Amino acid sequence: MSLEETFSKLQINASDDAVVVKSLVFKPKTPKSQTPVPIVVVALHSTTTPSGLIASVTSTKDPRLARDELFQSQFKIQSGKEFHLGHLAQAEGAFKLLLDQQLVALADDTVLQLNDEKFVKKSDLIGKYLNSFEPLEVDFSQVVEVAKKEASAPAPAKSAASLEDAKLIGVTVDKALDFSGWYQQILTKGEMLDYYDVSGCYILRPASYAIWEQIQRWFDDRIKGLGVQNAYFPMFVSSRVLEKEKDHIEGFAPEVAWVTRAGTSELDEPIAIRPTSETVMYPYYAKWIQSYRDLPIKLNQWNSVVRWEFKHPQPFLRTREFLWQEGHTAHLTKEAAEEEVMQILDFYAGVYEELLAVPVVKGRKTEKEKFAGGDFTTTCEGYIPQTGRGIQGATSHHLGQNFSKMFNISVENPLGSEHPKIFAYQNSWGLSTRVIGVMVMIHSDNKGLVIPPRVSQFQSVVLPVGITTKTSDEQRAKIHENARAIESRLKKAGIRAFGDYNDNYTPGWKFSQYELKGIPLRIELGPKDLEKEQVTCVRRNDGKKIVVSLNDLEKRIPEILEELQQDLFNKAKELFDTHRVIVDEWKDFVPALNKKNVILSPWCGVEECEEDIKDASAKKDDGEEIEVDDKSPSMGAKSLCIPFNQPTLKPGQKCVKCTRLAKTYCMFGRSY
Amino acid sequence: MSLEETFSKLQINASDDAVVVKSLVFKPKTPKSQTPVPIVVVALHSTTTPSGLIASVTSTKDPRLARDELFQSQFKIQSGKEFHLGHLAQAEGAFKLLLDQQLVALADDTVLQLNDEKFVKKSDLIGKYLNSFEPLEVDFSQVVEVAKKEASAPAPAKSAASLEDAKLIGVTVDKALDFSGWYQQILTKGEMLDYYDVSGCYILRPASYAIWEQIQRWFDDRIKGLGVQNAYFPMFVSSRVLEKEKDHIEGFAPEVAWVTRAGTSELDEPIAIRPTSETVMYPYYAKWIQSYRDLPIKLNQWNSVVRWEFKHPQPFLRTREFLWQEGHTAHLTKEAAEEEVMQILDFYAGVYEELLAVPVVKGRKTEKEKFAGGDFTTTCEGYIPQTGRGIQGATSHHLGQNFSKMFNISVENPLGSEHPKIFAYQNSWGLSTRVIGVMVMIHSDNKGLVIPPRVSQFQSVVLPVGITTKTSDEQRAKIHENARAIESRLKKAGIRAFGDYNDNYTPGWKFSQYELKGIPLRIELGPKDLEKEQVTCVRRNDGKKIVVSLNDLEKRIPEILEELQQDLFNKAKELFDTHRVIVDEWKDFVPALNKKNVILSPWCGVEECEEDIKDASAKKDDGEEIEVDDKSPSMGAKSLCIPFNQPTLKPGQKCVKCTRLAKTYCMFGRSY
Repeated sequence: MSLEETFSKLQINASDDAVVVKSLVFKPKTPKSQTPVPIVVVALHSTTTPSGLIASVTSTKDPRLARDELFQSQFKIQSGKEFHLGHLAQAEGAFKLLLDQQLVALADDTVLQLNDEKFVKKSDLIGKYLNSFEPLEVDFSQVVEVAKKEASAPAPAKSAASLEDAKLIGVTVDKALDFSGWYQQILTKGEMLDYYDVSGCYILRPASYAIWEQIQRWFDDRIKGLGVQNAYFPMFVSSRVLEKEKDHIEGFAPEVAWVTRAGTSELDEPIAIRPTSETVMYPYYAKWIQSYRDLPIKLNQWNSVVRWEFKHPQPFLRTREFLWQEGHTAHLTKEAAEEEVMQILDFYAGVYEELLAVPVVKGRKTEKEKFAGGDFTTTCEGYIPQTGRGIQGATSHHLGQNFSKMFNISVENPLGSEHPKIFAYQNSWGLSTRVIGVMVMIHSDNKGLVIPPRVSQFQSVVLPVGITTKTSDEQRAKIHENARAIESRLKKAGIRAFGDYNDNYTPGWKFSQYELKGIPLRIELGPKDLEKEQVTCVRRNDGKKIVVSLNDLEKRIPEILEELQQDLFNKAKELFDTHRVIVDEWKDFVPALNKKNVILSPWCGVEECEEDIKDASAKKDDGEEIEVDDKSPSMGAKSLCIPFNQPTLKPGQKCVKCTRLAKTYCMFGRSY
Repeated sequence: MSLEETFSKLQINASDDAVVVKSLVFKPKTPKSQTPVPIVVVALHSTTTPSGLIASVTSTKDPRLARDELFQSQFKIQSGKEFHLGHLAQAEGAFKLLLDQQLVALADDTVLQLNDEKFVKKSDLIGKYLNSFEPLEVDFSQVVEVAKKEASAPAPAKSAASLEDAKLIGVTVDKALDFSGWYQQILTKGEMLDYYDVSGCYILRPASYAIWEQIQRWFDDRIKGLGVQNAYFPMFVSSRVLEKEKDHIEGFAPEVAWVTRAGTSELDEPIAIRPTSETVMYPYYAKWIQSYRDLPIKLNQWNSVVRWEFKHPQPFLRTREFLWQEGHTAHLTKEAAEEEVMQILDFYAGVYEELLAVPVVKGRKTEKEKFAGGDFTTTCEGYIPQTGRGIQGATSHHLGQNFSKMFNISVENPLGSEHPKIFAYQNSWGLSTRVIGVMVMIHSDNKGLVIPPRVSQFQSVVLPVGITTKTSDEQRAKIHENARAIESRLKKAGIRAFGDYNDNYTPGWKFSQYELKGIPLRIELGPKDLEKEQVTCVRRNDGKKIVVSLNDLEKRIPEILEELQQDLFNKAKELFDTHRVIVDEWKDFVPALNKKNVILSPWCGVEECEEDIKDASAKKDDGEEIEVDDKSPSMGAKSLCIPFNQPTLKPGQKCVKCTRLAKTYCMFGRSY
């Protein structure tokens, strides 16, 4: 019996208790002259398979998820999407097979569910099929050996050690080596988020939702100061209404989720879940606005929207349901609308810079990148140092009269009915939970989360320390009692503090726990502290110790938290500032990009040229084939924004790419 | 050509610009010996067709939406759902046809969309078809003549007049005569809510959302004080997970909305929108809770849920999507869980009584009425005087170990591993935007909304008054300037105030507007007030005038608002208290119910007896046929709760319905 036949005979009926197994194919970096040897990884769905570890156990270089070309040449199938384990039997050449130890450890009669919804008994799959390919068992939970460090961001020796220390509960992936594996780990192990059984959806646990609440309160107060009122519109849209503004919906149509059934009844007409609420709200704006005295109307809602993306989902950054606010306003004059667009953008920048300690660049999107159906889009753009990529922070759109003409949001002219009626000038603006992901990526480290104190759910943890077997009960009780008093004083002073007085864990274990969770300040009280009437504070971001006299508690702790906040911002700002480089000539463009910079270049403003820049910067400069994945330096540079804060254009300055005169400096970069 | 043929030939192609037209069939109250003459109303979808007005123009009594029996006997179709205008041609006997004047006024070539998705030209429908039935044109926007008043709630002469005054913008339906028409009007005209083009979904406008925000802040502060944390779980549930707890899902299954498609791709497996989150959250509780030290876990979310009810929707009370909070906690001991259930119920009662000025009765649901899958349900129950019906306010459930056993939420025994593991004791508790509907029904009147000051978006409006053509510009400016100063002082004092200084509207028009919207306190400043350094305050709830010296503004206005709040509660409480009667003998039960009371009766606690009570109280006592609708007195009495505050049972007291001994007093009533 051929292997193909064997595999197809292994299949059994679907089971509800099946354990989901993934199979991934990686291609190591290979000189062009050689045929790459694919690495096939078969692992529990829940197992993280960092590429650094794969490289290490297979002694290959930089393995990445294989592209369709490899599947075509090696497995005789058109695309990676079709791939299943049966295709191993028809491989053209050699490949390496890695088996997850956790999978091997399952009971023999466990039913496995493979990628393509095939079901098979574990013992059959491994014993009768995979073992014929001489697999290598791998413990994917092992600590990645930190084989190399990037020159630009050398990790101190201490950091490598702490990765070792954290083996059991802590982060096992190095931020510098496997950024996306690291991101996933700190979010889940830091208890900020959990993965959910509907793909692309995530659970926001209290640690992240509390950050969202801080942002909500800050932003809500400010927009209410502008006269914005909150409201709630239904999450459902009829297809007729959704499709009314054709240009607008074109961008969203492929991602709209449709409800077609209720209970066991098919609905007469499918109903969409809002991807955004322009078409939900504007028919009612038309109804409610009867006179120019009804303007402006300024409504906002805090809600969730659904965009059923088929691209690889990523916590906070690309999720199928996400929380956001969407503001929708209509004004009598263009000036009033434009003023608001800028005011809101300033608030968005404030959320990033003042709350999240994340520096951003404010600017305007190019025509190519603006919101479809609007007049212009303003944005604040962030920067992720590890990947050297830009990330869109939040956008505030001026819609002009495009939607008001479509939905007939119009009023009689205040000058009198002999003058033409006026269509309202509209804005829409949104900020989503994506901000939390950006914040995490920028500040956190190999010990876990680092969260700025202004937004973190808890700002400090009070811990009794230095209690040993020799400590008397009386002494122990005294330390505990005083620690509790400190906690209570901090809370009274408005600091979000808590204490951990559990004797079952060592202070060291607790240190790791609260470092993992990103509590900004650890406040230790030991026998010596007590003696000297002081506490020892340790900053999460840099481990710096600060001794504070008990008398100064209410005054100093808030100061220390504010300094910490400011230091986080300064550090991130310096990284952004030094990686935002001015490039006037094309020859320097891609090399600068490859050094993980975003680039300010003189630009002609022509859309084709913008596309040229993207295409030309996508080519790799080392002669290898093009690959696009999360870590690839080969992605083309998009225009991120035309910054409001412009370098001065020299007279006669040409566009960085073409021969036209430059009109402006534009910020380009690889991006999320 | 027969009329049937004529009608079927009128149909034209669907049009996007079509105006939606509804056709409704009413049955007037008719002695059993006579054949009822149906009243067919053809009107714009947007036109409100109050039954009081229909009664008046047709000189009939108490017309109500016809039931299937009438369609069977008069139009030869099985059910009202099938009815369309073509069926008029096959009517068995006489009927009256009413045409909406606004429909008649449309341009002749307007395309109309009928109930059943048929399209027809307006001139054809009326000219070639409906005119053959000798229709009567009706102006449905006209004021209903208040022909009779109920003895129990005589409206003062002034109220009848204000209905007259309010012709253009105000409420045109009398609360006592057409409660549901009135409810709809005050919500929409008071700008609290708008109807939406997806049936059963409503828009919460700022006036209602702001109330929700007040409730959120109040309740959120209190549960955080208990250590509850907010989180957000996805709105989607896989069918596998949703259906895990069979008893629980059985109650929700017929109402679950299913997403089956994203963009143009059919999903592999339909995904449900949460009707509630027990099964969404508990698998993760099982994962997160590893040790008894992880207990208690107390999470809450502020979200929306979807229950696709097929019953007649009603704003706030029964909607397909609604906002709520759902708290889900797991405890190590039953005692801790039970203590929390009661604490939360007290908070819910606080929302009603302290914020919304709505009195409630706290108690426990019977086994029949409790939450499926839980151990017991506590509830606070309200009362709507106009209909004499009880309404469930909010419920706090103790789930016992039922869900924890199903989802394996368990921990090792703190006493040691030799003791059996412990399944967590769980609670879930929810409060929805329904509270706003209850509040509106209870306090509001024929002038519009009445909103308690503690929750209303705005607590007072400052209005310049007494400015006539004789007022000098200087005097006018001075009044305005002082009014603005008053507004500013009120705001500084933390009062949610605004001013209306628009000269284009008369004070009288403004009074009506803000009465319609339920602004609790109107603060007038006229020339005489200015002279005497005072303002004249008018309470929305009873029109009572109170003069306040300008010096006392910051002190007196909050006091007046608090008095108003208390008066609203006292009035509602008196109505509830006097309509909650003790009935020990069955012969008095239905008569008491028919007097719009809820009833406290001694009860045996047996479920069959509870069902008997419902059946027996559903029979009408006047020999007419049974009808069930909003105003019908024929609905059976359900058990509302077993109040915690119990009358004393006499020794040997029998159950009100059967021969068993009574175990407890139970509150019964017709209900929402």
